[in-house]
Amino acid sequence: MLMLITYDVNTETSEGKKRLRKIAKECQNYGQRVQNSVFECLIDPTQFAKLKYKLESIMDLQTDSIRYYNLGSNWQNRVEHIGAKESYNPEGFLFV
Amino acid sequence: MLMLITYDVNTETSEGKKRLRKIAKECQNYGQRVQNSVFECLIDPTQFAKLKYKLESIMDLQTDSIRYYNLGSNWQNRVEHIGAKESYNPEGFLFV
Repeated sequence: MLMLITYDVNTETSEGKKRLRKIAKECQNYGQRVQNSVFECLIDPTQFAKLKYKLESIMDLQTDSIRYYNLGSNWQNRVEHIGAKESYNPEGFLFV
Repeated sequence: MLMLITYDVNTETSEGKKRLRKIAKECQNYGQRVQNSVFECLIDPTQFAKLKYKLESIMDLQTDSIRYYNLGSNWQNRVEHIGAKESYNPEGFLFV
C-alpha cells in the first residue's frame, strides 16, 4: 500500500530541523521524500506499524503533528504533481 | 471527494510566505488547513478544476510544487492524525 505521511514541525528552530531530518531518514527507508515534509512510503501493514512507532517516538507530540493517509494499492491514478522537482532531494544528490 | 493538497514553498522568503497565504486562502474556500502547507478540500470535480487553475496561477512553477491526492469518497478510514492541533489554524482563532 502507499502511505502518505505529512509532518508539521516548526523548522525555524534547530530542534525542529533535527526532528524533520530524523523523520525523513526513517521514511526514506520505505519510500521517497516528495516535498520538504511530505513522504510517500510503499509499505506493508507490519512495516508501517514499526515505522509509525519510530516516527511517534521522534516527534514532539505537544508541538508537531503527523498525518497518515492510506492511498491503498491503486494509488497511481490518485496522485498528481505540478511544478518544481518531482523527486525532492534536499541533499542535492541526483537520484538515478 | 476529498482532495488532499500539499504545497511545497520556501517560506524563508517573503514572496514564498505570501504565495502560501494565497494558496491557503483559496483552499480554505473548500476545506481546511490541516498542517502549515497541507489542505483537505471536500470538492466536486468541477470545483476542483477551478481551484487547480487558481492555485497554479498563484504558485511559482520554477520553485514551488503542488501535489494533489484524490482520497475519493470513502476517505474517512484513510486518514489518521497524531500530535498537536487536529485543526490547524495559523491565525490563532478557535474553530468551534
